[in-house]
Amino acid sequence: MKHYSGTYTLYSMQWSGNCYKVRLALAQLGISYRLVELDIVKGETRTPEFLAKNPGGRVPLLEVAPGRYLPESNAILWYIAGGTSLAPEDRIDRAEALQWMFFEQHSLEPNLGQARFWLTLVKGGRELQRHSLEDWMEKGYQALSVMEKHLARRRFFAANRYTIADIALYAYTHVAHESDFDLSGFPALRAWLKRVASQPNYIPMDWHPAAAAAVAE
Amino acid sequence: MKHYSGTYTLYSMQWSGNCYKVRLALAQLGISYRLVELDIVKGETRTPEFLAKNPGGRVPLLEVAPGRYLPESNAILWYIAGGTSLAPEDRIDRAEALQWMFFEQHSLEPNLGQARFWLTLVKGGRELQRHSLEDWMEKGYQALSVMEKHLARRRFFAANRYTIADIALYAYTHVAHESDFDLSGFPALRAWLKRVASQPNYIPMDWHPAAAAAVAE
Repeated sequence: MKHYSGTYTLYSMQWSGNCYKVRLALAQLGISYRLVELDIVKGETRTPEFLAKNPGGRVPLLEVAPGRYLPESNAILWYIAGGTSLAPEDRIDRAEALQWMFFEQHSLEPNLGQARFWLTLVKGGRELQRHSLEDWMEKGYQALSVMEKHLARRRFFAANRYTIADIALYAYTHVAHESDFDLSGFPALRAWLKRVASQPNYIPMDWHPAAAAAVAE
Repeated sequence: MKHYSGTYTLYSMQWSGNCYKVRLALAQLGISYRLVELDIVKGETRTPEFLAKNPGGRVPLLEVAPGRYLPESNAILWYIAGGTSLAPEDRIDRAEALQWMFFEQHSLEPNLGQARFWLTLVKGGRELQRHSLEDWMEKGYQALSVMEKHLARRRFFAANRYTIADIALYAYTHVAHESDFDLSGFPALRAWLKRVASQPNYIPMDWHPAAAAAVAE
């Protein structure tokens, strides 16, 4: 495995929206990092070695200092963006950014993310029947509607500017079509997706480790 | 409805763990507030009047300034506790508190909270079959195991002290038995529950508005 120079080591899976959030923020902040690519389907986040780093057995996981590991994509965003304009520190602006990031983990990602996981990565099977795709679709559309309403009168989610709240919400929303969500009835959301994609140093989700290595060196 | 004096208005439902988080933190911070009790089962969070305040249609909702409403329990905790020892601001301590609060909304509350909602409030019915109680129990125990492992060597979740991360995780964990979770195999978790309940100005979940009014006046 290639080791990239840099302060942080990011344990990541290319396909994951939660990991993409961190890769996007690191790129936009111009922070170089060592990338360790893991395959969750092959069980690479369930090995004793990885569980010792993160008992939750999930990626993304950021090694912020030797032996000190930080899980949870949105907590990682606050950590790496702290002190930059991407992380609002004004009291009410910070609360608003947090509001949307908790909303993302509670109401958006579990529905869009799980639907996408079973439909595009696992591609059906017993688990998809056990879980309720209909339920995910219904709750996913509810979450998208709340976002559409908010964006109808605003350019970004919090603090009147592009922040890590946008990065968090963008990750799964911009691939909503992969789990059969139809955004044609969400014009404000579609305009916002374009707005995010036009931010400086934006990288698409399929920007891969080889490309990262080329830039880092 | 009785209006209490104070800066904030909290829209809340007595039964809700997410609302309890905010009531507990307000009590521990010594902040008085106006309490508006709503019944989600009677649809009181789905009225046009309430949806105008919070398009997500959920409680808790905090009116932080006239006409300015903040949803999401954990974002509210950061807002009201900002600048106090309950909200760690050191970079890594803040990230650690956020890590556990995102974990709470993503991995703990959806499982313990939904199981409790259908088992104790709605008490079964078509919806409970449609949703997967087994799935909630399985994932709920996974989350509790991650917490147990963390607490085996620590007194609190973040920053080596009692913080809003403990308040967030306590809300649903301390009523886990109401949704049939058995914590007998989780000794560190049970010791931590006692530790939280012994914090200054702690209030139990059933501490009700009448008692709040008596204190506020």
